[in-house]
Amino acid sequence: MIVILTGGTGGAKLVQGLSLEIDPKELIIVCNTGDDFITYGLHVSPDLDTITYTLAGIHDPSKGWGIKDDTFTVLEWLGKYGGETWFRLGDRDLATHIRRSALMRQGRSLSQVTARIRKSLGIEAVILPMSDDRVETRVITPRGEISFQDFFVKTRCADEVEAVLFAGVENSRPAPGVIEAIREANGVILCPSNPVTSIGPILAVPGVRTALRESRAPVIGVSPIIGGAPVSGPAHKLMAAMGMEVSALGVAKAYADFLSTLLIATEDGNLAGGIRELGINSSATSIRLDSIMDRRRVAHEVLALL
Amino acid sequence: MIVILTGGTGGAKLVQGLSLEIDPKELIIVCNTGDDFITYGLHVSPDLDTITYTLAGIHDPSKGWGIKDDTFTVLEWLGKYGGETWFRLGDRDLATHIRRSALMRQGRSLSQVTARIRKSLGIEAVILPMSDDRVETRVITPRGEISFQDFFVKTRCADEVEAVLFAGVENSRPAPGVIEAIREANGVILCPSNPVTSIGPILAVPGVRTALRESRAPVIGVSPIIGGAPVSGPAHKLMAAMGMEVSALGVAKAYADFLSTLLIATEDGNLAGGIRELGINSSATSIRLDSIMDRRRVAHEVLALL
Repeated sequence: MIVILTGGTGGAKLVQGLSLEIDPKELIIVCNTGDDFITYGLHVSPDLDTITYTLAGIHDPSKGWGIKDDTFTVLEWLGKYGGETWFRLGDRDLATHIRRSALMRQGRSLSQVTARIRKSLGIEAVILPMSDDRVETRVITPRGEISFQDFFVKTRCADEVEAVLFAGVENSRPAPGVIEAIREANGVILCPSNPVTSIGPILAVPGVRTALRESRAPVIGVSPIIGGAPVSGPAHKLMAAMGMEVSALGVAKAYADFLSTLLIATEDGNLAGGIRELGINSSATSIRLDSIMDRRRVAHEVLALL
Repeated sequence: MIVILTGGTGGAKLVQGLSLEIDPKELIIVCNTGDDFITYGLHVSPDLDTITYTLAGIHDPSKGWGIKDDTFTVLEWLGKYGGETWFRLGDRDLATHIRRSALMRQGRSLSQVTARIRKSLGIEAVILPMSDDRVETRVITPRGEISFQDFFVKTRCADEVEAVLFAGVENSRPAPGVIEAIREANGVILCPSNPVTSIGPILAVPGVRTALRESRAPVIGVSPIIGGAPVSGPAHKLMAAMGMEVSALGVAKAYADFLSTLLIATEDGNLAGGIRELGINSSATSIRLDSIMDRRRVAHEVLALL
């Protein structure tokens, strides 16, 4: 059994490759929920949904979020009523949020709802939220503290970032099964997700980091940074704000206490020595995940390292 | 200023005619909310919405509910997730329920939200819910007490009806403006809506019936029953269950304590004597409201009686 820690868009590409290279029943995928937010009274879980849609084969590969061929009728009409429309909720996607919110209002936990949704879509891999408790990634900017979605979607990462915090994380508990999965895993994979706001919140849930440190199974990461720049998203800005070096070496340092091996880009081969000094192996290869072929190949290499 | 009491589909036809025959700014429309219900955590107000969509010119004339050209993508996907789909929520229609529910969760009253929505759609007539308090029409059947939507939509009026009750009505208050409107009206119009479950709940809100009795302005009704059968809907079954005669005379009796004049169908002219004995005038004419022309003509006749 393999445990995968992941955020949304970037991580989903490797998750897709892994699900095609190994029996999905052997995968337990732990998702970041720090980006979750409430809009129109609906609980939106962007990373859980991106992973779910990807594994169901209904994701929108061109956008990197949402469901393919989705329409935006509800959002258009919410706009007519004076509602906010900057978070692009598609109609099919909205059904997920409506269903999730209704079940949660009836007392179901986020992990129970996530299980029901993925089973409805025929997904065999287990998908777990990092926590059933509310943890909210907040970005400190010169104009004040804002939500991650405000930073990431509404203002498209335009704000200067002073710091990032995970509100509520101290009192959060890992979702049922997360710690057990890490303890019993034959291997743990860290997706090429943003180390600050995608993997960071998962590691900040009390107990998760310790379980990784104590794991006897190898922990393999894939660098989200190639040659000093993130493959996608605002990792650069966020890593710099947190005082991290924006490179595969910076990524290795962030995970130094539990990582066995980091897959880095061929052009970052010169960083192998520095990573080695942290007690982490590295393997340089092409780690771009643009095509399905790339995703399967990198997944295959990661699995070979386990 | 004219006050209109109405339910959904049937009443909306006369409301449409009235809005075309008189300056809509002079209309205050009081809607039944006994059919309101919560589905997927969303507050659905079928009659308020049918009236709102009709006045905005976006209603679906073929169905008698919902918004024209609407799609059902969200509902289809809710079905994939194992959710209930018997209540046909269109995508455009859903935006109304999502917006309303979000604003109500923020503390806005149903009447405040109704005002915002109708203004967003450019409606000049005032639309008021009968009450901001929750009043729920319940149908007593041999299989137990069920909601009105369960009776009306889910099982298509198949259940035998033993009685109807309006849960919560004793402690409800008329929405702000309802009593004042009736007191200050130059005329009150009762739409050809079901007297049991459309007009009945409005009259049951404490203070409304008394205000109608004390009104010095004429109160004009249009019969929803033609020749012993309702024009549409389950009025027949519901009236019979409540011990009412299923005829224009039965309608007159239900409103005898405050009605000035009842417009009845030409073929019901023979009931004029019985209605007269109740102290109510009647006027026999063609009261079918199939075409816009019919609706305007009947509206014109009602306004002439005021």
